[in-house]
Amino acid sequence: MAVIVNKSIVFMVYSLLILHSFFIIAHSKKLDDNKPCKRFVLYYHNILFNGTNAANATSATVTNHTQLGNFNHGALVVFDDPMTKDNHLLSPPVARAQGFYFYDMKTTFNAWFSYTLIFNSSEHKGTINIMGADMMDEETRDLSIVGGTGDFFMTRGIATFGGDSVQGSYYFRLQMDIKLYECY
Amino acid sequence: MAVIVNKSIVFMVYSLLILHSFFIIAHSKKLDDNKPCKRFVLYYHNILFNGTNAANATSATVTNHTQLGNFNHGALVVFDDPMTKDNHLLSPPVARAQGFYFYDMKTTFNAWFSYTLIFNSSEHKGTINIMGADMMDEETRDLSIVGGTGDFFMTRGIATFGGDSVQGSYYFRLQMDIKLYECY
Amino acid sequence: MAVIVNKSIVFMVYSLLILHSFFIIAHSKKLDDNKPCKRFVLYYHNILFNGTNAANATSATVTNHTQLGNFNHGALVVFDDPMTKDNHLLSPPVARAQGFYFYDMKTTFNAWFSYTLIFNSSEHKGTINIMGADMMDEETRDLSIVGGTGDFFMTRGIATFGGDSVQGSYYFRLQMDIKLYECY
Repeated sequence: MAVIVNKSIVFMVYSLLILHSFFIIAHSKKLDDNKPCKRFVLYYHNILFNGTNAANATSATVTNHTQLGNFNHGALVVFDDPMTKDNHLLSPPVARAQGFYFYDMKTTFNAWFSYTLIFNSSEHKGTINIMGADMMDEETRDLSIVGGTGDFFMTRGIATFGGDSVQGSYYFRLQMDIKLYECY
Repeated sequence: MAVIVNKSIVFMVYSLLILHSFFIIAHSKKLDDNKPCKRFVLYYHNILFNGTNAANATSATVTNHTQLGNFNHGALVVFDDPMTKDNHLLSPPVARAQGFYFYDMKTTFNAWFSYTLIFNSSEHKGTINIMGADMMDEETRDLSIVGGTGDFFMTRGIATFGGDSVQGSYYFRLQMDIKLYECY
Repeated sequence: MAVIVNKSIVFMVYSLLILHSFFIIAHSKKLDDNKPCKRFVLYYHNILFNGTNAANATSATVTNHTQLGNFNHGALVVFDDPMTKDNHLLSPPVARAQGFYFYDMKTTFNAWFSYTLIFNSSEHKGTINIMGADMMDEETRDLSIVGGTGDFFMTRGIATFGGDSVQGSYYFRLQMDIKLYECY
Protein backbone atom coordinates (compact mmCIF):
# COMPACT_ATOMS: atom_id res chain seq x y z
CA MET A 1 0.00 0.00 0.00
CA ALA A 2 2.73 2.46 0.96
CA VAL A 3 4.57 1.71 -2.28
CA ILE A 4 1.50 2.50 -4.39
CA VAL A 5 1.03 5.82 -2.63
CA ASN A 6 4.68 6.62 -3.14
CA LYS A 7 4.42 6.00 -6.87
CA SER A 8 1.57 8.46 -7.14
CA ILE A 9 3.65 11.00 -5.24
CA VAL A 10 6.51 10.52 -7.67
CA PHE A 11 4.10 11.00 -10.54
CA MET A 12 2.69 14.14 -8.94
CA VAL A 13 6.16 15.56 -8.34
CA TYR A 14 7.12 14.90 -11.95
CA SER A 15 3.94 16.60 -13.13
CA LEU A 16 4.62 19.60 -10.95
CA LEU A 17 8.17 19.93 -12.24
CA ILE A 18 7.00 19.75 -15.83
CA LEU A 19 4.34 22.39 -15.20
CA HIS A 20 6.94 24.46 -13.41
CA SER A 21 9.21 24.24 -16.44
CA PHE A 22 6.46 25.48 -18.73
CA PHE A 23 5.89 28.40 -16.39
CA ILE A 24 9.59 29.27 -16.45
CA ILE A 25 9.94 28.89 -20.22
CA ALA A 26 6.92 31.13 -20.67
CA HIS A 27 8.65 33.75 -18.53
CA SER A 28 12.11 33.39 -20.03
CA LYS A 29 13.38 35.70 -22.72
CA LYS A 30 12.41 34.06 -25.98
CA LEU A 31 11.55 36.72 -28.51
CA ASP A 32 9.22 35.86 -31.36
CA ASP A 33 9.03 38.42 -34.17
CA ASN A 34 5.34 37.64 -34.60
CA LYS A 35 4.55 38.47 -30.99
CA PRO A 36 5.51 42.00 -30.04
CA CYS A 37 4.52 42.95 -26.49
CA LYS A 38 3.21 46.25 -27.88
CA ARG A 39 2.48 47.40 -31.41
CA PHE A 40 1.11 50.53 -33.05
CA VAL A 41 1.24 52.25 -36.41
CA LEU A 42 2.09 55.93 -36.77
CA TYR A 43 2.54 58.23 -39.74
CA TYR A 44 5.49 60.56 -40.06
CA HIS A 45 4.99 63.79 -42.01
CA ASN A 46 8.04 65.68 -43.22
CA ILE A 47 7.66 69.14 -44.77
CA LEU A 48 11.01 70.43 -45.97
CA PHE A 49 11.81 74.13 -45.64
CA ASN A 50 12.16 75.67 -49.11
CA GLY A 51 13.00 79.22 -48.04
CA THR A 52 9.44 80.56 -48.03
CA ASN A 53 7.32 78.01 -46.12
CA ALA A 54 8.67 78.57 -42.60
CA ALA A 55 5.13 78.57 -41.16
CA ASN A 56 4.51 74.98 -42.29
CA ALA A 57 7.98 73.54 -42.60
CA THR A 58 9.03 70.94 -40.03
CA SER A 59 12.53 70.21 -41.30
CA ALA A 60 15.39 71.83 -43.16
CA THR A 61 18.43 70.72 -45.10
CA VAL A 62 21.57 71.44 -43.12
CA THR A 63 24.34 70.39 -45.52
CA ASN A 64 24.57 70.67 -49.27
CA HIS A 65 24.67 67.38 -51.11
CA THR A 66 28.09 66.32 -52.35
CA GLN A 67 29.05 65.82 -56.00
CA LEU A 68 29.11 62.03 -55.57
CA GLY A 69 26.31 60.86 -57.87
CA ASN A 70 22.96 62.53 -58.55
CA PHE A 71 20.94 61.29 -55.60
CA ASN A 72 21.49 63.92 -52.95
CA HIS A 73 24.45 62.08 -51.39
CA GLY A 74 25.48 63.86 -48.21
CA ALA A 75 22.42 66.10 -47.84
CA LEU A 76 21.54 65.99 -44.14
CA VAL A 77 18.09 67.04 -42.92
CA VAL A 78 17.22 67.93 -39.31
CA PHE A 79 13.55 67.46 -38.45
CA ASP A 80 10.93 67.99 -35.75
CA ASP A 81 8.02 66.24 -37.43
CA PRO A 82 4.46 65.45 -36.32
CA MET A 83 3.41 61.81 -35.95
CA THR A 84 -0.27 61.00 -36.50
CA LYS A 85 -2.41 57.91 -36.01
CA ASP A 86 -3.88 58.02 -39.50
CA ASN A 87 -2.27 59.16 -42.72
CA HIS A 88 -3.68 62.71 -42.73
CA LEU A 89 -1.14 65.46 -42.32
CA LEU A 90 -3.62 67.62 -40.43
CA SER A 91 -4.75 65.00 -37.91
CA PRO A 92 -3.82 65.87 -34.32
CA PRO A 93 -0.24 64.71 -33.70
CA VAL A 94 0.15 62.00 -31.05
CA ALA A 95 3.95 62.36 -30.94
CA ARG A 96 6.86 64.32 -32.41
CA ALA A 97 9.79 62.76 -34.25
CA GLN A 98 13.02 64.69 -33.63
CA GLY A 99 16.27 63.75 -35.29
CA PHE A 100 17.97 63.65 -38.64
CA TYR A 101 18.38 61.73 -41.87
CA PHE A 102 20.83 61.97 -44.71
CA TYR A 103 21.15 60.51 -48.19
CA ASP A 104 24.06 58.11 -48.56
CA MET A 105 24.16 56.43 -51.98
CA LYS A 106 25.55 57.55 -55.34
CA THR A 107 23.36 55.24 -57.46
CA THR A 108 19.87 55.65 -55.97
CA PHE A 109 17.93 57.57 -53.33
CA ASN A 110 18.71 55.89 -50.05
CA ALA A 111 18.70 57.34 -46.55
CA TRP A 112 19.86 56.72 -42.99
CA PHE A 113 17.80 57.84 -39.96
CA SER A 114 18.40 58.40 -36.28
CA TYR A 115 15.65 60.01 -34.21
CA THR A 116 13.49 60.07 -31.11
CA LEU A 117 9.73 59.68 -30.91
CA ILE A 118 8.50 61.99 -28.14
CA PHE A 119 5.13 61.27 -26.56
CA ASN A 120 3.58 63.85 -24.26
CA SER A 121 -0.14 63.19 -24.03
CA SER A 122 -2.58 61.75 -21.52
CA GLU A 123 -2.19 58.43 -23.32
CA HIS A 124 1.61 58.17 -23.32
CA LYS A 125 4.55 60.06 -21.84
CA GLY A 126 8.06 59.09 -22.78
CA THR A 127 10.40 58.57 -25.68
CA ILE A 128 11.45 55.85 -28.13
CA ASN A 129 14.88 55.98 -29.78
CA ILE A 130 15.34 54.61 -33.29
CA MET A 131 18.19 54.22 -35.76
CA GLY A 132 18.89 52.44 -39.01
CA ALA A 133 19.01 52.39 -42.79
CA ASP A 134 16.05 53.44 -44.92
CA MET A 135 16.64 51.53 -48.15
CA MET A 136 14.04 53.46 -50.08
CA ASP A 137 13.93 51.03 -53.02
CA GLU A 138 12.67 48.23 -50.77
CA GLU A 139 8.92 47.98 -50.17
CA THR A 140 9.45 47.74 -46.42
CA ARG A 141 12.59 48.23 -44.37
CA ASP A 142 13.32 47.60 -40.73
CA LEU A 143 15.11 49.98 -38.36
CA SER A 144 16.12 49.22 -34.78
CA ILE A 145 14.34 50.59 -31.73
CA VAL A 146 17.32 50.77 -29.40
CA GLY A 147 15.87 52.24 -26.22
CA GLY A 148 13.05 54.06 -24.53
CA THR A 149 12.16 56.17 -21.51
CA GLY A 150 9.05 56.98 -19.46
CA ASP A 151 6.12 54.77 -20.50
CA PHE A 152 8.53 53.05 -22.86
CA PHE A 153 11.18 52.47 -20.20
CA MET A 154 14.06 50.36 -21.56
CA THR A 155 12.08 49.12 -24.55
CA ARG A 156 13.62 47.59 -27.68
CA GLY A 157 12.08 46.53 -30.96
CA ILE A 158 11.70 47.08 -34.69
CA ALA A 159 10.29 50.07 -36.59
CA THR A 160 9.16 49.05 -40.07
CA PHE A 161 8.96 51.80 -42.68
CA GLY A 162 6.72 51.29 -45.68
CA GLY A 163 3.17 50.46 -46.48
CA ASP A 164 1.24 53.65 -47.11
CA SER A 165 4.09 56.03 -47.82
CA VAL A 166 4.26 59.05 -50.10
CA GLN A 167 7.59 60.30 -51.37
CA GLY A 168 7.98 63.77 -52.77
CA SER A 169 10.64 66.41 -52.83
CA TYR A 170 9.15 68.83 -50.28
CA TYR A 171 6.56 66.67 -48.49
CA PHE A 172 6.86 63.03 -47.75
CA ARG A 173 5.01 60.65 -45.49
CA LEU A 174 6.27 57.42 -43.97
CA GLN A 175 4.18 54.75 -42.32
CA MET A 176 6.05 53.50 -39.27
CA ASP A 177 4.95 50.20 -37.78
CA ILE A 178 6.31 50.26 -34.22
CA LYS A 179 6.79 46.77 -32.77
CA LEU A 180 8.16 46.52 -29.24
CA TYR A 181 9.56 43.15 -28.10
CA GLU A 182 10.84 44.19 -24.70
CA CYS A 183 8.30 45.89 -22.43
CA TYR A 184 8.84 46.57 -18.72
CA MET B 1 1.76 5.75 9.36
CA ALA B 2 3.10 5.59 5.84
CA VAL B 3 0.32 7.88 4.61
CA ILE B 4 1.15 10.53 7.20
CA VAL B 5 4.82 10.51 6.22
CA ASN B 6 3.82 10.82 2.58
CA LYS B 7 1.70 13.87 3.30
CA SER B 8 4.64 15.60 4.92
CA ILE B 9 6.74 14.75 1.87
CA VAL B 10 4.12 16.29 -0.39
CA PHE B 11 4.11 19.39 1.77
CA MET B 12 7.88 19.57 1.69
CA VAL B 13 7.98 19.20 -2.09
CA TYR B 14 5.42 21.97 -2.49
CA SER B 15 7.43 24.22 -0.21
CA LEU B 16 10.58 23.52 -2.16
CA LEU B 17 8.88 24.29 -5.46
CA ILE B 18 7.54 27.56 -4.13
CA LEU B 19 10.94 28.58 -2.78
CA HIS B 20 12.44 27.53 -6.10
CA SER B 21 10.00 29.78 -7.92
CA PHE B 22 10.98 32.76 -5.78
CA PHE B 23 14.61 32.08 -6.57
CA ILE B 24 13.88 31.99 -10.29
CA ILE B 25 11.70 35.09 -10.25
CA ALA B 26 14.42 36.94 -8.35
CA HIS B 27 16.88 36.00 -11.09
CA SER B 28 14.57 36.69 -14.03
CA LYS B 29 14.72 39.94 -15.98
CA LYS B 30 12.33 42.28 -14.23
CA LEU B 31 13.58 45.83 -14.50
CA ASP B 32 12.50 48.37 -11.92
CA ASP B 33 13.26 51.99 -12.74
CA ASN B 34 13.90 52.66 -9.05
CA LYS B 35 16.55 49.97 -8.84
CA PRO B 36 19.42 50.52 -11.25
CA CYS B 37 22.22 47.97 -10.90
CA LYS B 38 24.69 50.87 -11.07
CA ARG B 39 24.25 54.62 -10.78
CA PHE B 40 26.49 57.66 -10.80
CA VAL B 41 26.22 61.35 -11.52
CA LEU B 42 28.62 63.15 -13.84
CA TYR B 43 28.88 66.72 -15.10
CA TYR B 44 29.40 67.52 -18.76
CA HIS B 45 31.24 70.74 -19.60
CA ASN B 46 30.97 72.14 -23.11
CA ILE B 47 33.13 75.08 -24.19
CA LEU B 48 32.25 76.15 -27.71
CA PHE B 49 35.01 77.34 -30.03
CA ASN B 50 34.48 81.03 -30.86
CA GLY B 51 37.43 81.51 -33.18
CA THR B 52 39.91 82.66 -30.54
CA ASN B 53 39.63 80.21 -27.62
CA ALA B 54 41.18 77.13 -29.23
CA ALA B 55 43.26 76.44 -26.10
CA ASN B 56 40.15 75.99 -23.95
CA ALA B 57 37.47 75.04 -26.46
CA THR B 58 36.21 71.45 -26.39
CA SER B 59 33.66 71.67 -29.18
CA ALA B 60 32.94 73.54 -32.38
CA THR B 61 29.94 74.25 -34.57
CA VAL B 62 30.19 72.30 -37.80
CA THR B 63 27.14 73.50 -39.74
CA ASN B 64 25.53 76.90 -39.91
CA HIS B 65 22.02 77.06 -38.51
CA THR B 66 19.24 77.12 -41.10
CA GLN B 67 16.77 79.97 -41.61
CA LEU B 68 13.94 77.92 -40.05
CA GLY B 69 13.06 79.89 -36.92
CA ASN B 70 15.38 81.78 -34.59
CA PHE B 71 16.58 78.97 -32.37
CA ASN B 72 19.69 77.69 -34.10
CA HIS B 73 17.79 75.02 -36.05
CA GLY B 74 20.28 72.83 -37.87
CA ALA B 75 23.43 73.99 -36.08
CA LEU B 76 25.43 70.82 -35.40
CA VAL B 77 28.19 70.77 -32.79
CA VAL B 78 30.93 68.12 -32.54
CA PHE B 79 32.41 67.77 -29.05
CA ASP B 80 35.12 66.06 -27.04
CA ASP B 81 34.13 67.26 -23.58
CA PRO B 82 35.42 66.54 -20.08
CA MET B 83 33.13 64.79 -17.58
CA THR B 84 33.72 65.54 -13.89
CA LYS B 85 32.35 64.09 -10.66
CA ASP B 86 31.38 67.47 -9.23
CA ASN B 87 30.14 70.55 -11.04
CA HIS B 88 33.49 72.34 -11.29
CA LEU B 89 34.86 72.76 -14.78
CA LEU B 90 38.43 72.45 -13.54
CA SER B 91 37.97 69.28 -11.50
CA PRO B 92 39.97 66.34 -12.88
CA PRO B 93 37.93 64.68 -15.62
CA VAL B 94 36.87 61.08 -14.94
CA ALA B 95 35.70 60.52 -18.51
CA ARG B 96 35.41 62.18 -21.91
CA ALA B 97 32.16 62.62 -23.81
CA GLN B 98 32.69 62.39 -27.58
CA GLY B 99 29.89 62.89 -30.06
CA PHE B 100 27.56 65.54 -31.40
CA TYR B 101 24.37 67.47 -30.81
CA PHE B 102 22.27 69.67 -33.01
CA TYR B 103 19.37 72.06 -32.53
CA ASP B 104 16.13 70.83 -34.11
CA MET B 105 13.17 73.11 -33.35
CA LYS B 106 11.94 76.32 -34.93
CA THR B 107 9.99 77.56 -31.88
CA THR B 108 12.39 77.00 -28.96
CA PHE B 109 15.91 75.84 -28.14
CA ASN B 110 15.81 72.07 -28.27
CA ALA B 111 18.60 69.62 -29.03
CA TRP B 112 19.32 66.01 -29.96
CA PHE B 113 22.42 64.17 -28.70
CA SER B 114 24.34 61.07 -29.64
CA TYR B 115 27.68 60.41 -27.94
CA THR B 116 30.03 58.05 -26.15
CA LEU B 117 31.30 58.35 -22.60
CA ILE B 118 34.91 57.12 -22.58
CA PHE B 119 36.43 55.96 -19.29
CA ASN B 120 40.15 55.32 -19.12
CA SER B 121 41.22 55.47 -15.48
CA SER B 122 42.23 53.03 -12.78
CA GLU B 123 38.60 53.10 -11.61
CA HIS B 124 36.89 52.34 -14.94
CA LYS B 125 37.91 51.38 -18.46
CA GLY B 126 35.30 51.18 -21.17
CA THR B 127 32.60 53.12 -22.93
CA ILE B 128 28.91 53.91 -22.62
CA ASN B 129 26.87 54.85 -25.71
CA ILE B 130 23.95 57.27 -25.38
CA MET B 131 21.37 58.83 -27.69
CA GLY B 132 18.16 60.79 -27.41
CA ALA B 133 16.31 64.08 -27.35
CA ASP B 134 17.32 66.91 -25.03
CA MET B 135 14.07 68.84 -24.62
CA MET B 136 15.74 71.82 -23.01
CA ASP B 137 12.47 73.36 -21.76
CA GLU B 138 11.82 70.36 -19.50
CA GLU B 139 13.39 70.36 -16.04
CA THR B 140 14.73 66.85 -16.57
CA ARG B 141 14.84 64.73 -19.70
CA ASP B 142 15.74 61.11 -20.25
CA LEU B 143 18.02 59.76 -22.97
CA SER B 144 18.70 56.10 -23.73
CA ILE B 145 21.91 54.31 -22.82
CA VAL B 146 21.96 51.82 -25.69
CA GLY B 147 25.18 49.91 -25.15
CA GLY B 148 28.54 49.70 -23.46
CA THR B 149 31.96 48.09 -23.67
CA GLY B 150 34.79 47.16 -21.29
CA ASP B 151 33.72 47.59 -17.66
CA PHE B 152 30.29 48.54 -19.00
CA PHE B 153 30.04 45.48 -21.26
CA MET B 154 26.60 45.27 -22.89
CA THR B 155 25.00 47.69 -20.45
CA ARG B 156 21.73 49.54 -21.05
CA GLY B 157 19.97 52.24 -19.07
CA ILE B 158 18.80 55.82 -18.82
CA ALA B 159 20.84 59.05 -18.74
CA THR B 160 18.85 61.86 -17.14
CA PHE B 161 19.88 65.40 -18.03
CA GLY B 162 18.96 68.20 -15.67
CA GLY B 163 19.40 69.15 -12.08
CA ASP B 164 22.35 71.42 -11.68
CA SER B 165 22.75 72.63 -15.24
CA VAL B 166 24.01 75.93 -16.59
CA GLN B 167 23.10 77.06 -20.07
CA GLY B 168 25.03 79.75 -21.86
CA SER B 169 26.04 80.51 -25.38
CA TYR B 170 29.74 79.55 -25.17
CA TYR B 171 29.87 77.48 -21.99
CA PHE B 172 27.21 75.16 -20.72
CA ARG B 173 27.14 72.45 -18.12
CA LEU B 174 24.80 69.47 -17.95
CA GLN B 175 24.27 67.18 -14.99
CA MET B 176 23.97 63.63 -16.27
CA ASP B 177 22.50 61.04 -13.93
CA ILE B 178 23.66 57.70 -15.35
CA LYS B 179 21.40 54.81 -14.33
CA LEU B 180 22.32 51.36 -15.61
CA TYR B 181 19.64 48.65 -15.47
CA GLU B 182 21.54 45.88 -17.21
CA CYS B 183 24.94 45.04 -15.74
CA TYR B 184 27.01 41.98 -16.68
CA MET C 1 10.01 -0.18 4.77
CA ALA C 2 7.71 2.68 3.85
CA VAL C 3 10.02 5.15 5.57
CA ILE C 4 13.02 3.94 3.56
CA VAL C 5 11.15 4.31 0.29
CA ASN C 6 10.08 7.81 1.31
CA LYS C 7 13.67 8.82 1.98
CA SER C 8 14.67 7.75 -1.49
CA ILE C 9 11.80 9.78 -2.89
CA VAL C 10 12.98 12.81 -0.99
CA PHE C 11 16.47 12.26 -2.36
CA MET C 12 15.13 11.89 -5.89
CA VAL C 13 13.06 15.04 -5.60
CA TYR C 14 16.06 16.99 -4.34
CA SER C 15 18.15 15.68 -7.22
CA LEU C 16 15.51 16.66 -9.71
CA LEU C 17 15.23 20.16 -8.29
CA ILE C 18 18.97 20.62 -8.44
CA LEU C 19 19.11 19.41 -12.05
CA HIS C 20 16.18 21.67 -12.81
CA SER C 21 18.07 24.62 -11.37
CA PHE C 22 21.08 23.92 -13.56
CA PHE C 23 18.80 23.81 -16.59
CA ILE C 24 17.30 27.17 -15.66
CA ILE C 25 20.62 28.82 -14.90
CA ALA C 26 21.96 27.58 -18.25
CA HIS C 27 19.00 29.25 -19.95
CA SER C 28 19.08 32.49 -17.96
CA LYS C 29 20.70 35.63 -19.31
CA LYS C 30 24.30 35.53 -18.18
CA LEU C 31 26.50 37.12 -20.81
CA ASP C 32 30.13 36.14 -21.03
CA ASP C 33 32.32 38.31 -23.24
CA ASN C 34 34.32 35.24 -24.25
CA LYS C 35 31.24 33.43 -25.49
CA PRO C 36 29.42 35.33 -28.23
CA CYS C 37 26.45 33.44 -29.68
CA LYS C 38 27.68 34.45 -33.14
CA ARG C 39 30.95 35.90 -34.37
CA PHE C 40 32.45 36.88 -37.70
CA VAL C 41 35.15 39.18 -39.01
CA LEU C 42 34.52 41.61 -41.85
CA TYR C 43 36.65 44.24 -43.54
CA TYR C 44 35.37 47.74 -44.21
CA HIS C 45 36.79 49.60 -47.22
CA ASN C 46 36.36 53.35 -47.41
CA ILE C 47 37.32 55.25 -50.58
CA LEU C 48 36.86 58.96 -50.11
CA PHE C 49 35.63 61.09 -53.01
CA ASN C 50 38.37 63.52 -54.07
CA GLY C 51 36.47 65.28 -56.86
CA THR C 52 37.65 63.04 -59.68
CA ASN C 53 37.21 59.43 -58.51
CA ALA C 54 33.40 59.24 -58.52
CA ALA C 55 33.49 55.83 -60.22
CA ASN C 56 35.37 54.23 -57.32
CA ALA C 57 34.51 56.50 -54.39
CA THR C 58 32.21 55.07 -51.72
CA SER C 59 32.09 58.07 -49.38
CA ALA C 60 32.35 61.83 -49.41
CA THR C 61 33.08 64.57 -46.92
CA VAL C 62 29.93 66.53 -46.17
CA THR C 63 31.18 69.27 -43.85
CA ASN C 64 34.43 71.19 -43.84
CA HIS C 65 36.59 70.62 -40.81
CA THR C 66 36.53 73.40 -38.22
CA GLN C 67 39.54 75.50 -37.18
CA LEU C 68 39.77 73.71 -33.83
CA GLY C 69 43.14 71.96 -33.99
CA ASN C 70 44.80 70.35 -36.99
CA PHE C 71 43.15 66.93 -36.98
CA ASN C 72 40.10 67.40 -39.17
CA HIS C 73 37.83 68.26 -36.22
CA GLY C 74 34.26 68.49 -37.46
CA ALA C 75 34.76 66.88 -40.86
CA LEU C 76 31.79 64.55 -41.34
CA VAL C 77 31.87 61.77 -43.93
CA VAL C 78 28.81 59.92 -45.27
CA PHE C 79 29.57 56.45 -46.60
CA ASP C 80 28.09 53.46 -48.42
CA ASP C 81 31.03 51.10 -48.16
CA PRO C 82 31.59 47.47 -49.17
CA MET C 83 32.28 44.89 -46.47
CA THR C 84 34.35 41.86 -47.45
CA LYS C 85 35.29 38.60 -45.73
CA ASP C 86 38.99 38.99 -46.37
CA ASN C 87 41.08 42.12 -46.51
CA HIS C 88 41.05 42.58 -50.29
CA LEU C 89 39.21 45.63 -51.54
CA LEU C 90 38.11 43.80 -54.70
CA SER C 91 36.74 40.67 -53.00
CA PRO C 92 32.99 40.26 -53.49
CA PRO C 93 31.21 42.32 -50.82
CA VAL C 94 29.11 40.30 -48.35
CA ALA C 95 27.44 43.41 -46.90
CA ARG C 96 27.29 47.19 -47.20
CA ALA C 97 28.05 49.61 -44.38
CA GLN C 98 25.89 52.75 -44.61
CA GLY C 99 26.26 55.61 -42.19
CA PHE C 100 28.64 58.35 -41.16
CA TYR C 101 31.69 59.21 -39.15
CA PHE C 102 33.25 62.47 -38.09
CA TYR C 103 36.52 63.59 -36.51
CA ASP C 104 36.08 64.99 -33.01
CA MET C 105 39.41 65.81 -31.34
CA LYS C 106 41.70 68.82 -31.54
CA THR C 107 44.87 67.00 -30.43
CA THR C 108 44.85 63.77 -32.48
CA PHE C 109 42.92 61.95 -35.21
CA ASN C 110 39.92 60.43 -33.49
CA ALA C 111 36.52 59.54 -34.93
CA TRP C 112 32.95 58.66 -33.99
CA PHE C 113 30.85 56.23 -36.06
CA SER C 114 27.20 55.37 -36.43
CA TYR C 115 26.15 53.02 -39.22
CA THR C 116 24.20 50.03 -40.42
CA LEU C 117 25.58 46.79 -41.84
CA ILE C 118 23.18 45.64 -44.57
CA PHE C 119 23.22 41.98 -45.57
CA ASN C 120 21.31 40.90 -48.67
CA SER C 121 22.69 37.57 -49.84
CA SER C 122 21.63 33.94 -49.82
CA GLU C 123 23.65 33.56 -46.62
CA HIS C 124 22.19 36.45 -44.62
CA LYS C 125 19.37 38.97 -44.98
CA GLY C 126 19.00 41.72 -42.43
CA THR C 127 20.78 44.60 -40.76
CA ILE C 128 23.02 45.27 -37.77
CA ASN C 129 23.13 48.76 -36.20
CA ILE C 130 26.34 50.02 -34.63
CA MET C 131 27.52 53.17 -32.86
CA GLY C 132 30.47 54.32 -30.81
CA ALA C 133 33.83 56.01 -30.57
CA ASP C 134 36.75 55.05 -32.78
CA MET C 135 39.76 56.07 -30.69
CA MET C 136 42.21 55.67 -33.54
CA ASP C 137 45.30 55.79 -31.31
CA GLU C 138 44.25 52.59 -29.52
CA GLU C 139 45.24 49.27 -31.08
CA THR C 140 41.68 47.97 -30.77
CA ARG C 141 38.51 49.80 -29.82
CA ASP C 142 35.02 48.53 -29.08
CA LEU C 143 31.79 49.97 -30.44
CA SER C 144 28.27 48.92 -29.45
CA ILE C 145 26.00 46.80 -31.62
CA VAL C 146 22.69 48.23 -30.48
CA GLY C 147 20.15 46.35 -32.58
CA GLY C 148 19.43 44.23 -35.60
CA THR C 149 16.71 43.13 -37.98
CA GLY C 150 15.96 40.14 -40.25
CA ASP C 151 18.43 37.31 -39.63
CA PHE C 152 19.90 39.49 -36.89
CA PHE C 153 16.53 40.18 -35.23
CA MET C 154 16.98 42.11 -31.97
CA THR C 155 20.66 41.28 -31.67
CA ARG C 156 23.14 43.16 -29.49
CA GLY C 157 26.89 42.91 -29.14
CA ILE C 158 30.31 44.45 -29.64
CA ALA C 159 32.09 45.45 -32.85
CA THR C 160 35.85 45.61 -32.34
CA PHE C 161 37.83 47.77 -34.74
CA GLY C 162 41.51 47.05 -35.22
CA GLY C 163 43.77 44.23 -36.13
CA ASP C 164 44.57 44.39 -39.79
CA SER C 165 43.68 47.99 -40.53
CA VAL C 166 45.15 50.43 -43.02
CA GLN C 167 44.78 54.15 -42.52
CA GLY C 168 45.30 56.57 -45.35
CA SER C 169 43.86 59.86 -46.45
CA TYR C 170 41.74 58.64 -49.38
CA TYR C 171 41.54 54.89 -48.76
CA PHE C 172 41.36 53.21 -45.43
CA ARG C 173 40.45 49.73 -44.31
CA LEU C 174 39.11 48.65 -40.92
CA GLN C 175 38.90 45.13 -39.60
CA MET C 176 35.61 44.75 -37.75
CA ASP C 177 35.25 41.79 -35.41
CA ILE C 178 31.49 41.38 -34.97
CA LYS C 179 30.58 39.60 -31.73
CA LEU C 180 26.89 39.07 -31.02
CA TYR C 181 25.87 38.20 -27.45
CA GLU C 182 22.13 38.22 -27.91
CA CYS C 183 20.79 35.96 -30.68
CA TYR C 184 17.13 35.08 -31.20
